[in-house]
Amino acid sequence: MALIVQKYGGTSVGSVERIQCVAEKIAGFRDQGHDVVVVVSAMSGETNRLAGLARAIAPQPDAREYDVLLSTGEQVTIALLAMALKQRGCPARSFTGGQVRILTDSAHNKARIKDIDRRDMDDALSGGQVVVVAGFQGVDENGSITTLGRGGSDTTAVALAAALEADECQIYTDVDGVYTTDPRVVPEARRLDRITFEEMLEMASLGSKVLQIRAVEFAGKYNVPLRVLSSFAEGGGTLISYEDEGMEQALISGIAFNRDEAKLTVLGVPDHPGVASQILGPIGEANIEVDMIIQNVAADGTTDFTFTVHRNDFEKATVVLEKVAVELGAREVAGDNKIVKISLVGVGMRSHAGIAGKMFELLAKEGINIRMISTSEIKVSVVVDEKYLELGVRALHSGFALEHAIEVMD
Amino acid sequence: MALIVQKYGGTSVGSVERIQCVAEKIAGFRDQGHDVVVVVSAMSGETNRLAGLARAIAPQPDAREYDVLLSTGEQVTIALLAMALKQRGCPARSFTGGQVRILTDSAHNKARIKDIDRRDMDDALSGGQVVVVAGFQGVDENGSITTLGRGGSDTTAVALAAALEADECQIYTDVDGVYTTDPRVVPEARRLDRITFEEMLEMASLGSKVLQIRAVEFAGKYNVPLRVLSSFAEGGGTLISYEDEGMEQALISGIAFNRDEAKLTVLGVPDHPGVASQILGPIGEANIEVDMIIQNVAADGTTDFTFTVHRNDFEKATVVLEKVAVELGAREVAGDNKIVKISLVGVGMRSHAGIAGKMFELLAKEGINIRMISTSEIKVSVVVDEKYLELGVRALHSGFALEHAIEVMD
Repeated sequence: MALIVQKYGGTSVGSVERIQCVAEKIAGFRDQGHDVVVVVSAMSGETNRLAGLARAIAPQPDAREYDVLLSTGEQVTIALLAMALKQRGCPARSFTGGQVRILTDSAHNKARIKDIDRRDMDDALSGGQVVVVAGFQGVDENGSITTLGRGGSDTTAVALAAALEADECQIYTDVDGVYTTDPRVVPEARRLDRITFEEMLEMASLGSKVLQIRAVEFAGKYNVPLRVLSSFAEGGGTLISYEDEGMEQALISGIAFNRDEAKLTVLGVPDHPGVASQILGPIGEANIEVDMIIQNVAADGTTDFTFTVHRNDFEKATVVLEKVAVELGAREVAGDNKIVKISLVGVGMRSHAGIAGKMFELLAKEGINIRMISTSEIKVSVVVDEKYLELGVRALHSGFALEHAIEVMD
Repeated sequence: MALIVQKYGGTSVGSVERIQCVAEKIAGFRDQGHDVVVVVSAMSGETNRLAGLARAIAPQPDAREYDVLLSTGEQVTIALLAMALKQRGCPARSFTGGQVRILTDSAHNKARIKDIDRRDMDDALSGGQVVVVAGFQGVDENGSITTLGRGGSDTTAVALAAALEADECQIYTDVDGVYTTDPRVVPEARRLDRITFEEMLEMASLGSKVLQIRAVEFAGKYNVPLRVLSSFAEGGGTLISYEDEGMEQALISGIAFNRDEAKLTVLGVPDHPGVASQILGPIGEANIEVDMIIQNVAADGTTDFTFTVHRNDFEKATVVLEKVAVELGAREVAGDNKIVKISLVGVGMRSHAGIAGKMFELLAKEGINIRMISTSEIKVSVVVDEKYLELGVRALHSGFALEHAIEVMD
């Protein structure tokens, strides 16, 4: 018998029929003798409907009242799910974020959880009830309703699991786990049985949208074992946890990629100390986030300075740079918004040299020119032309044999 | 400068455009220097939508969770209205029933208000904010959300007005006041400037659906002046209060009627003490409410016992009576579900004799046969055949000259 926190997203509770299915699934877990705490999102489409009403009222709706509005979405779901459970003879009790007392700061629309009062949940659990909690919402010191921002229901689930010292936090979604890469690009992509928090963070930050980054960070920080599973299909999903003895020692866990990249270069900058901050300062002030940065020194005492930004920021960054270039006496600004980033991710890299070399070789064999390179302890990223994305990802997936599960080393 | 509690019903806040209009109206009141507390219902259609979801989940949805569900309807409205006010530069703050701490008993779906904590509202008002409160909902001792039952937003408004010692409680609706009778029956019906609580209660209990009976009772009990006005048209509406010196001394304030009546008679009951309770006992046990009761003694030592019930209960009551009649040795059971009740209502009756006589005379002149009569201190009711409803109401309205306002007596 275990204490399990389960989270069901908007698609999983998107209709009366799906709520009935979720209730069936939960009742099954309880029949196995588990204590179950369920976190739910708003029914799919509901948050957008509410946001649309708000925008019709005010172009910039008041942040406090926006939270009062959006939080009704999850409140509807907890009520319907608790009803469905009771209808099946499964005792249940719904809790809004305020009723659990998920205490947050007062940063409306993007609040952070400060504390959770587990007493009422403990009472309900020891009374044999399934606890159904509204995700995405909390309450601040003044009793005002707050929301954690989009996707925050994952964070609610992990925070509850941490507060309740749950045995596992299960995130039910519309995919059945974390894959070695996007199966739409590589049909042979394989579902991973396990992945570490660090790897998952790298995968998530590179556009693998299975889980919210904040939820993974939170789970890692409080060491809450996290499992991603499908609401609709059977299967054990993917367990996200810290490395342990019995864990398979894969060199590479997966290949992540990001299509939303753009690259900017200031060419022929007179090379003197402080150039980097003179260029990146104004970019930061314009609220543009910079990802990879490369600086090359040319033979003539000038330097070429290159960095990548989100593709949406490309135009804005170009305008800022044109001005900076003039001030610095640089030769010109060049840009390219038809690039992508491909990354190998794996904790095994820590103890194995030569991964990067093999990666470059595999890409070269396909005639793919590498435009930028960046590495971290568990990741190697390259920037290539957009048109090479699929070819590159497939070449790496097959070159590192990711379609085959690796034997566990003893 | 006054403290005014205003309530806007579902139709008044039924769309984004209407919410904007309501915000405009409220901002105007505040600009005049008034403190304003606003109570709102769910947008029209919303409560039915939510109830439909619940019924799709469970034929008899759990009462506690049903309240969690339905209460989101008003929560959406308070958020949107507060946004609209702030968008106009009018400071505002929304409160759910739980946030105001409208403390109720735990009778889910039909809770009664026990106490209201005015502190947070006082703080907001003294900070210059318009206070926007979700109607229809409260919270019980355990922190569970409760609802006051359908139409409960009027009660919320009156209860807040009482707790805050407001100068007036204004109920905005889709009619512009209380009329001498239903204008669909008598086009000359006149809007009343004032009416007493007692008269309003009689009018309301007879099917004049402008206000919820409970709200009127509550307002009378706590002496909260209540005003019914239109959300869409200008005008002073109708003020409901206690009689006072300057009040016009109309004999008759209005004519109410009720189409939902049915009449049952047990004929030839052996006349001995206890007959009434032997007949009405089983009716009460079957949860059938009885309105008018008449008992006549016949010459042969038997009695005829007649009473009226809601037309929906007619079949059920007939079945109960058939059984009772056999037990009592009565001759037969007769019934008529094609009858209506017409009532004259007016506090002036207290001091003026002859009203009933004039009423019967006016009806006789039109050839309308009176089937039953019942009187109270401020009301005379008659039961007549359904087909005479319009004719009777019009005859009385014109006979008592209700289309003309009466001069105030000095």
